[in-house]
Amino acid sequence: MLQIALLGFGVVGGGTAEVLLENQKQIAAYCGDDVNIKYILDLREFPDHPLGDRVVHDVKIILDDPEVVLVAEMMGGAHPAYDFTRAALEAGKSVVTSNKEVVATFGTELLELAREHGASYLFEASVGGGIPIIRPMQTDLASNEILAVSGILNGTTNFILTKMKNEGADFADVLRLAQQKGYAEANPTADVEGLDAARKIVILAALAFGTLLDPNKIPTTGITGITRDHTETADKLGGAVKLIGHTEKIDGKILALVSPYFVPATNPISHVDDVYNGILVDANMLGRALFYGAGAGKLPTASAVVADILDVLSHRKDERRLPVWTRAAENDVADPTAYVCRRAYLFEGCQKCAEKAKKALGAQDAVFLEGSRFALISSPLSEKAAVDALAATGLCPILTLPVLD
Amino acid sequence: MLQIALLGFGVVGGGTAEVLLENQKQIAAYCGDDVNIKYILDLREFPDHPLGDRVVHDVKIILDDPEVVLVAEMMGGAHPAYDFTRAALEAGKSVVTSNKEVVATFGTELLELAREHGASYLFEASVGGGIPIIRPMQTDLASNEILAVSGILNGTTNFILTKMKNEGADFADVLRLAQQKGYAEANPTADVEGLDAARKIVILAALAFGTLLDPNKIPTTGITGITRDHTETADKLGGAVKLIGHTEKIDGKILALVSPYFVPATNPISHVDDVYNGILVDANMLGRALFYGAGAGKLPTASAVVADILDVLSHRKDERRLPVWTRAAENDVADPTAYVCRRAYLFEGCQKCAEKAKKALGAQDAVFLEGSRFALISSPLSEKAAVDALAATGLCPILTLPVLD
Repeated sequence: MLQIALLGFGVVGGGTAEVLLENQKQIAAYCGDDVNIKYILDLREFPDHPLGDRVVHDVKIILDDPEVVLVAEMMGGAHPAYDFTRAALEAGKSVVTSNKEVVATFGTELLELAREHGASYLFEASVGGGIPIIRPMQTDLASNEILAVSGILNGTTNFILTKMKNEGADFADVLRLAQQKGYAEANPTADVEGLDAARKIVILAALAFGTLLDPNKIPTTGITGITRDHTETADKLGGAVKLIGHTEKIDGKILALVSPYFVPATNPISHVDDVYNGILVDANMLGRALFYGAGAGKLPTASAVVADILDVLSHRKDERRLPVWTRAAENDVADPTAYVCRRAYLFEGCQKCAEKAKKALGAQDAVFLEGSRFALISSPLSEKAAVDALAATGLCPILTLPVLD
Repeated sequence: MLQIALLGFGVVGGGTAEVLLENQKQIAAYCGDDVNIKYILDLREFPDHPLGDRVVHDVKIILDDPEVVLVAEMMGGAHPAYDFTRAALEAGKSVVTSNKEVVATFGTELLELAREHGASYLFEASVGGGIPIIRPMQTDLASNEILAVSGILNGTTNFILTKMKNEGADFADVLRLAQQKGYAEANPTADVEGLDAARKIVILAALAFGTLLDPNKIPTTGITGITRDHTETADKLGGAVKLIGHTEKIDGKILALVSPYFVPATNPISHVDDVYNGILVDANMLGRALFYGAGAGKLPTASAVVADILDVLSHRKDERRLPVWTRAAENDVADPTAYVCRRAYLFEGCQKCAEKAKKALGAQDAVFLEGSRFALISSPLSEKAAVDALAATGLCPILTLPVLD
């Protein structure tokens, strides 16, 4: 019998217990032994739950029990989740987690701690909810060099942007609807300001390049400034506005950012709508692969947590190949103004201005919108080069969005 | 030093050697030991290749060498690939393969043979080229019950259908172009008649449901009958015609088929264009996930072969959890006329006929095309019920396509 413990019995913790109970036989066959939830740590009591008798309020009971080989941390928040994870790894217990804040902030040291103590630290559920992305990047793409990762990493903001696009609605109205539907929290800041996506792209960048950036320090723009101008421009240019987390290397340094992008209809990411997530990986052998699915929710996220539990329990004898991350030094981080991409612009002006802007930005065409406004897409330029080119014309864009090609 | 052998030094075999050589260090770190290609089996000589001295023409040299722990079979065709695979497994060597014909035809017994001899038999590259799909289904979705799998599994036919859609071109013309571009073979039968996709959906069905159907016996319709009527109808109904392999369970029995489908634009599969593949998995916990990428090609396919090599070599100590498949008995196979789905129809007729057809098929709307033709989408009906409903009206559709919702 393999004994495990759950930390946190909220939405994801409850879902994880549900998946483990419902699929007991299948899971035992997979692990070569029965898996039992010996403890559930929560501040609350759950007298009516079939596992109510497993609930404990003191993490020490779990840490001190040598039978417990694995802890699934689904508490959310940095503390005490981080502290309990440390203690569990130091006790030689493997930890799996859905907690992106802990992974994005403390992943480097927790992976090292796990290696030191011969334990595992897995976090498939921390990015993309139930979508398989972390394990495929580490196994299926193991022989590839990752060139870039770009994704719609937050379902709440994607729901809002999809509604704004389809119904010509305003941000504030759609946010209210999302809150009513339970897709956005009462305090939606972490979602709409892009912090949630920043944590996730920082984790993906670390998987791709081995260096963990500070999620609070990467350039992060959310969707609160998105207006009908943006959605109309995107529509005219043949694509959609999406909140994208993107990472790539520039001259050996790592760029990671979160920003609204213009995504042309030719990119499969532009069709990832509503609360779905989609993650595009560019790899040197495989080329482009897209992973798409439910980026959040009780059972999808629990599905990923249980996949990690099964991975740990079924590979007990082999030494775990945990990724080695280093914490980013200042010198590891690329200058964001050196980021080369096409950019979408909206200007106010006449046909002559459009010709001037096209020439300055190396654009093929300009399309006119109502009210003598025109939109165009530049050729690939660094942000610095684009700003300089525009400054020389005297034209000032109403809006600028990087393009995800 | 871990010694391996390659069987077949064509496109995929050459790509696999390239990936292994280029990423030697990374691969050694992953496996905990250096990996060396000791032998390459091919009928030809490769005097100018850096690995030319490893080429042998007699498989016995490989089978009799106890140092060789793994064989990568990339010969294609049923024989002698199957026979060499058997012999390698019987000698206790693990086998990884890109050979969908062998997996789809002999997978059941080869997996059993591998289990008997404590070896592995992995085949990530047999479906979807480089796209991670087999391993994610077996690991990330391990706690899920798979409900259905649907996919664009053949790049050649998807290229042809995309061109037909975008350019209003005819099948024969686009096929010639595909042959010129190297996307279609001189003898394109296996692709355009759907046999290639049939082999792949049979493998996915076995992964989902544990039963391997005979790929030559599942209902298989290719794209040779697709005309402008189809593409125009799909366009009017808001979607695209795609060649889909689909599998699901009907009353405990397995349905697997290959057919042109109408895929509405709301389904992400409808945006999988050109030579790309896309596979949609419906799972009871995760919900819907899409895996998208390069479904063929030298380096993408090699990337998947090498991922399997790394999987085997890095999990040498743990007992391999190979799937247990059974060969389908007649009683395991669902009656295809019991398949319930929406269906897209094109009819010739007047407004009154359209009303009659809508009523009979439970359609919401009918859209009129040029030449007093109309298209509609039925409500979900079994094929039998749809045929009966139409027979009662006396209407005879110009074309019928199942809908992938």
